[in-house]
Amino acid sequence: MGTVTRLVRNETGIGVVLETLADLFGDRFSSALSVREQHGHTTTRIENQPPDGVVFATTNEEVATVVRLCAANGVPVIPFGTGTSLEGHVNAPAGGISIDLSRMDRILAVRPEDLDCTVQAGVTRKRLNETLRDTGLFFPIDPGADASIGGMAATRASGTNAVRYGTMKDAVLALTVVTPDGEIVRTGTRARKSSAGYDLTRLMVGSEGTLGVITEITLRLHGIPEEIAGGVCPFPSIEAACETVITTIQAGIPIARIELLDALQVKAVNAYSKLGLAETPTLFVEFHGTKAGVAEQMEIFDAIAADFGGGPAAFATKAEERTRLWQARHDAYWASVGLVPGWKGTSTDVCVPISQLAACVTATQEDIAASGLIAPIVGHVGDGNFHVLVLADPADAAMNETVDAFIGRLNERAIAMGGTCTGEHGVGQGKIAYLPAEHGGALELMRAIKRAIDPHAIMNPGKILAP
Amino acid sequence: MGTVTRLVRNETGIGVVLETLADLFGDRFSSALSVREQHGHTTTRIENQPPDGVVFATTNEEVATVVRLCAANGVPVIPFGTGTSLEGHVNAPAGGISIDLSRMDRILAVRPEDLDCTVQAGVTRKRLNETLRDTGLFFPIDPGADASIGGMAATRASGTNAVRYGTMKDAVLALTVVTPDGEIVRTGTRARKSSAGYDLTRLMVGSEGTLGVITEITLRLHGIPEEIAGGVCPFPSIEAACETVITTIQAGIPIARIELLDALQVKAVNAYSKLGLAETPTLFVEFHGTKAGVAEQMEIFDAIAADFGGGPAAFATKAEERTRLWQARHDAYWASVGLVPGWKGTSTDVCVPISQLAACVTATQEDIAASGLIAPIVGHVGDGNFHVLVLADPADAAMNETVDAFIGRLNERAIAMGGTCTGEHGVGQGKIAYLPAEHGGALELMRAIKRAIDPHAIMNPGKILAP
Repeated sequence: MGTVTRLVRNETGIGVVLETLADLFGDRFSSALSVREQHGHTTTRIENQPPDGVVFATTNEEVATVVRLCAANGVPVIPFGTGTSLEGHVNAPAGGISIDLSRMDRILAVRPEDLDCTVQAGVTRKRLNETLRDTGLFFPIDPGADASIGGMAATRASGTNAVRYGTMKDAVLALTVVTPDGEIVRTGTRARKSSAGYDLTRLMVGSEGTLGVITEITLRLHGIPEEIAGGVCPFPSIEAACETVITTIQAGIPIARIELLDALQVKAVNAYSKLGLAETPTLFVEFHGTKAGVAEQMEIFDAIAADFGGGPAAFATKAEERTRLWQARHDAYWASVGLVPGWKGTSTDVCVPISQLAACVTATQEDIAASGLIAPIVGHVGDGNFHVLVLADPADAAMNETVDAFIGRLNERAIAMGGTCTGEHGVGQGKIAYLPAEHGGALELMRAIKRAIDPHAIMNPGKILAP
Repeated sequence: MGTVTRLVRNETGIGVVLETLADLFGDRFSSALSVREQHGHTTTRIENQPPDGVVFATTNEEVATVVRLCAANGVPVIPFGTGTSLEGHVNAPAGGISIDLSRMDRILAVRPEDLDCTVQAGVTRKRLNETLRDTGLFFPIDPGADASIGGMAATRASGTNAVRYGTMKDAVLALTVVTPDGEIVRTGTRARKSSAGYDLTRLMVGSEGTLGVITEITLRLHGIPEEIAGGVCPFPSIEAACETVITTIQAGIPIARIELLDALQVKAVNAYSKLGLAETPTLFVEFHGTKAGVAEQMEIFDAIAADFGGGPAAFATKAEERTRLWQARHDAYWASVGLVPGWKGTSTDVCVPISQLAACVTATQEDIAASGLIAPIVGHVGDGNFHVLVLADPADAAMNETVDAFIGRLNERAIAMGGTCTGEHGVGQGKIAYLPAEHGGALELMRAIKRAIDPHAIMNPGKILAP
């Protein structure tokens, strides 16, 4: 991933656009290198390709103005939320204008009776949940980072709660989108379901800014459960942990979170978050429901784990114990990076049918060992989704080549097992190479849609589809 | 709806295609009027527009052959499952070839460990559930009719269980689709979630055969709950019933079914199914879970209903009592048609945010009364979705005009309340007129997608998008 395709820059068009934006937006426009680099890619080994300028938009109309100006001059548009995406989504390989949506941060409506809300794209998930707290509702999608809702929609994010509450594809009811020709359109309605034509909402969710700029999102919310309990459960092997997951889900236990940490990952979180867990494959679990329901779920889970030689689980019903545990889970990235001071981590994810999970994780661990890499594994195993955080010395070119080759094999392995090259990170620049193997002839349908909606290819070029 | 746009027929192309298909398919091809009329629209007042010929396909390759032949000759292709759609989806306004998929009825794989299965498009939902029974799994989407899985995917069907288990958009993991140029492509994988590019699966689900022919479907399955209990609960008013629904859902009760019947609908099912219920607005409910969980859910529901002056609920835990109740619910259509012997029924559906449900149902009842119509209402109220079965004397032109005008107002009312002109029936021919009001500028995106994927407009022309 050291080499990313460079697209052709339209110098003349970019010059016109920069000058016009400076006039229109004043100090809400910047072409300073530091600002531009903050809006290029910063979170992985993919090199930073900064845009030519950054606009801090505050309204749908402003976004439309910028897009129309860019469209008229053949200049790329790159939507930007919080910059926490992992596959080079916000890079500007052909230059262009980054539209920073972080100042579109208003919660436009919360409707407790409908269990929904409408927010601007720059609202982050944590702030939304802080605002919702008094209503007894919450927004369950939790990718770890405090990402913007717009960015989460654009990458079809999910995270630890997805096994119960679904992903952004399930959470989004409706969108406001600025199209590549600068029209402001609404997709979907607040009705819970509809059969009224093509599902444009689901098409835009996960389109990574390549079909338009998502500016407002209407989200499904959920009632905060009466009771929440969670815990950790050690296992003798990856297989035993995975069998427990499969059986738990087959038994219809509505488990809210079920996360697998391999032994190395447990070692990393022990060191980073001072947890003192046994350094063996471990499931972090959480149950939501009524008091009686949660007690029943925990009991059944414990029995299933015991059947596979796991447990006993240590459950925590107190909010602060639970928070500490899940904070440790969320800090797994930093814990892993901390394993080798000075090295950098590359986070990659794949997702396979759950029956293939143990085989895929085990083969991946063997590959890691054979490659001489250090790479803890953590997974949203209820969905068959797992992450590998591959560490490498940034100065060691050979090691980085080994990492690239390992990531390639990981993706091919997941696809060969009937899975996908990314469960939740998205394609960006980093996963483009794997789409032909995964989608085959369907990739041509994606290209046809891209050409139809963005005929001048100005929307986030070089992402998802090869140029 | 007496007048449906007639598209231009391509007589020369049709002649060539009919001759070739007769040669290729022998007795699996028919141009007999009776067969053609069975494959035109039969289930509502929309007039029957039969295709020119019907092919009974048995493989993906045969479907691809037919589509390629039709594409080469500019002849329409109309996919056909069981013909139970309600808005003219299978009509052939420009003639063409109906591809009957009912003989593609193989269940290709059931994978209990992954809670999924893959079926050919012609498998019906009842047969799938019969086959699954021994595995402890079931397929929850239940639109009433014993529709084909392909047809259910094509219309984004849902039904009584959707409040808990979602709609076909949630149930479908992956598809095999024959594209308008006769390529066989696969969308999606068996992974539970993916961020690997545009969500073609969700684009095809609900596209009503206008973007390709769905030939195989991979579906999510669910474990048969340990305990199922259901019952009926009477209410003094529509408002009281709707408030009970809203509160039940806000409380996080994972109710599996919650159906509203208005007083007239109860009267109809009493007469048809000999139920003896009080003829007042009534909720039919069903709870799934563990024994303790279901008992708890019923108790909480009963308390909520009492708060709004409803109840007491009469619960049935015995399978046969429950079956009788839900059979009566499913027979609501026939029960309603039976209210006036000799008249015909038109079933239409809309869906609104749940907070608007009581207002929408009440305004609709007032409209029915003011229009002098007979039209019972039944709804999947957990989703804000309701159906009106409007009765009319087929020989009375004025009455049928009144029905059309009423249906128009119903759709406009739902859209004005933030809802959709169809929650689950689909657009077909009958709802095309309402899409501009519902989708505004987004309709142009749908047209762009249609042009991109089906440039020669051969796939089910005259459906969803106006010609």
